[in-house]
Amino acid sequence: MVKVQSVKNHTLHIEERAHEADHPTSQVAMFGADKPLKLDCGVEFTPFQIAYQTYGALNADRSNAILICHALTGDQHVANVHPVTGKGGWWDTMVGPGKAIDTDRYFVICSNVLGGCMGSTGPASTNPKTGTLWGLDFPVITIPDMVRAQAMLIDHLGIQTLLAVVGGSMGGMQVLQWAAAYPDRVFAALPIACATRHSAQNIAFHEVGRQAVMADPDWRAGRYFEHGTHPHRGLGVARMAAHITYLSDAALHRKFGRRMQDRELPTFSFDADFQVESYLRYQGSSFVERFDANSYLYLTRAMDYFDMAADHDGVLAAAFRDTITRFCVMSFTSDWLFPTSESRATVHALNAGGARVSFAEIETDKGHDAFLLDEPEFIGIATAFLESAASARGLKVTP
Amino acid sequence: MVKVQSVKNHTLHIEERAHEADHPTSQVAMFGADKPLKLDCGVEFTPFQIAYQTYGALNADRSNAILICHALTGDQHVANVHPVTGKGGWWDTMVGPGKAIDTDRYFVICSNVLGGCMGSTGPASTNPKTGTLWGLDFPVITIPDMVRAQAMLIDHLGIQTLLAVVGGSMGGMQVLQWAAAYPDRVFAALPIACATRHSAQNIAFHEVGRQAVMADPDWRAGRYFEHGTHPHRGLGVARMAAHITYLSDAALHRKFGRRMQDRELPTFSFDADFQVESYLRYQGSSFVERFDANSYLYLTRAMDYFDMAADHDGVLAAAFRDTITRFCVMSFTSDWLFPTSESRATVHALNAGGARVSFAEIETDKGHDAFLLDEPEFIGIATAFLESAASARGLKVTP
Repeated sequence: MVKVQSVKNHTLHIEERAHEADHPTSQVAMFGADKPLKLDCGVEFTPFQIAYQTYGALNADRSNAILICHALTGDQHVANVHPVTGKGGWWDTMVGPGKAIDTDRYFVICSNVLGGCMGSTGPASTNPKTGTLWGLDFPVITIPDMVRAQAMLIDHLGIQTLLAVVGGSMGGMQVLQWAAAYPDRVFAALPIACATRHSAQNIAFHEVGRQAVMADPDWRAGRYFEHGTHPHRGLGVARMAAHITYLSDAALHRKFGRRMQDRELPTFSFDADFQVESYLRYQGSSFVERFDANSYLYLTRAMDYFDMAADHDGVLAAAFRDTITRFCVMSFTSDWLFPTSESRATVHALNAGGARVSFAEIETDKGHDAFLLDEPEFIGIATAFLESAASARGLKVTP
Repeated sequence: MVKVQSVKNHTLHIEERAHEADHPTSQVAMFGADKPLKLDCGVEFTPFQIAYQTYGALNADRSNAILICHALTGDQHVANVHPVTGKGGWWDTMVGPGKAIDTDRYFVICSNVLGGCMGSTGPASTNPKTGTLWGLDFPVITIPDMVRAQAMLIDHLGIQTLLAVVGGSMGGMQVLQWAAAYPDRVFAALPIACATRHSAQNIAFHEVGRQAVMADPDWRAGRYFEHGTHPHRGLGVARMAAHITYLSDAALHRKFGRRMQDRELPTFSFDADFQVESYLRYQGSSFVERFDANSYLYLTRAMDYFDMAADHDGVLAAAFRDTITRFCVMSFTSDWLFPTSESRATVHALNAGGARVSFAEIETDKGHDAFLLDEPEFIGIATAFLESAASARGLKVTP
């Protein structure tokens, strides 16, 4: 019989992760019945909590705070060891002492998004009304909902105006939404590799991922936690498909080409003959250890729903009319998930809205994931933009 | 609770399809123990059968035969009603009386590939040694194996030299392999939207599809037929992911944009809110009715293994050295599965091999699937190429 390898049943860190959902290894802001969150779906959501990390110190006039918004599968652990995986922060290339987002100079905040699974309230959190997890009883949320919750966190921290809001991919969507919803609270905005709305192709890829999760019998209509199961196979497949979209064809070719895994000749089987196959399998199986399947459904849905023009009667420029925020929009030439054309459309809308905006398209073959990598030109431009914003806001240069 | 829709459990035409695997509604060529098929994996495979359709009549000097090679999920029913789905032929745009592949003039042959599930021997066929289906006991096959089997069929039909071999995608790979393996048997070759090897990105997408199938518990390690199950959810997800790669971002945008399905406002649920979602779900659920999951594994694997340069000591041009075949290579501008750059590489190798080759890149936003659609410029060039080949071979023009 032909040999077969499929995604491995890793020993899941489910218990650790489940614990994080309610009791995160980071700071938590609690919002009680007196502070409901008004969701786009109409629900007044209460109570809820937002888990967040901070790095550096807030200065006396509270003018040096930078909010980082994470991407679909990111979390608040931007520059510290991850409590579940034990790996370094997801943006160690950008955030730290002396780095672009200099924690010696700026007060850096990153919160787990609403709907996430690392301590902000989401489908993996306990619903206090029932004592069991929310699962699909959690309301469907939107990017504006996430940003509203973040704004309450920023209030809670006593900060009126952020020096900058920064993020890539879904994080970039939040940056744009922050600038549109709270223009006087965002001094500078750095949206990276993102768009003001999700394309049909991107919705299609998300739908494949959701169907992969829901097709897994262990998903149990979203109540796997009550059955002691976990849809790790479905979520693994979803991650594999998504991961291809984060890379470019050129990057895959450069990284793997058609090279075989630990052998020179084909096995004539369904083993992972090619390196790219075992790489993807690893991506799938490691992801399920740190992410909740229902959270994946909710966050992809929020991205699909994102459409800033639709929220402004079809006129995107209206989202940014007379904004005082300064913008730097960045994209990557080989990003086909959020191609440069999307960033150009954002820039045109910002121009039409009268915004102060610069735009940088970075030449790279690394695809969408380039914003997470050590891309010197990207990091250099981001550094300079934040420095000029800090200088315009009167921050002293660190000695 | 948030509403959920997942891929429907269609009433599967499993029995009809299973019957086709051994007893196809088309002609069948049987090859017994005296005619084993030497497979690349080393197996001498016997017995086996090849199911095929023909259209038109072979002329007296047997010079008007055109072989069509089908793509991954195609079959021999190129221009007739499909026996399982009841739909028209998959290439009705190209094949028929007075069409580009004119059945009034040419004798048109199309065979189900080895490893397929519509009557040529494959994993869904009965293994005569055991009396049960092959499943994963079927050997892993390659594109050259498929072509070897087709050549035996062409022998069986008493044809020495084909006027043309034509095909798109996996069919195009077979066209190129035909020209390389049997240059004196291919007067003209028309490889469309294909490549001489599968890229890392394409292998990656195939691997996602295979893992989706294998992740489905109903797959039962490939022996679902013995358990009365069918991995329709996994295969549906595989098809959904693949289908995105057959279209272009522009085509998806034009077809669906962000339009909602039967409604104007989001449902704040996991329903198919967007038209593109319900379209993909339909593609997934209709595919599983007509295709065998194990066949999908084998045929994607064959494409992954395809690498003509590797078969010629790394020198692609050697595959076509001193060929007498005339070639027309065609690609589509918006095809990102087999981009024009791949076709250009094929053309360069053909030039280096001294072949007579023309190349046409068709401007279209319809993506890879354009070869299956009514694309006038594409069809016009294909018609002219085949006419010139017929004329060069001395075929009389039909009155």
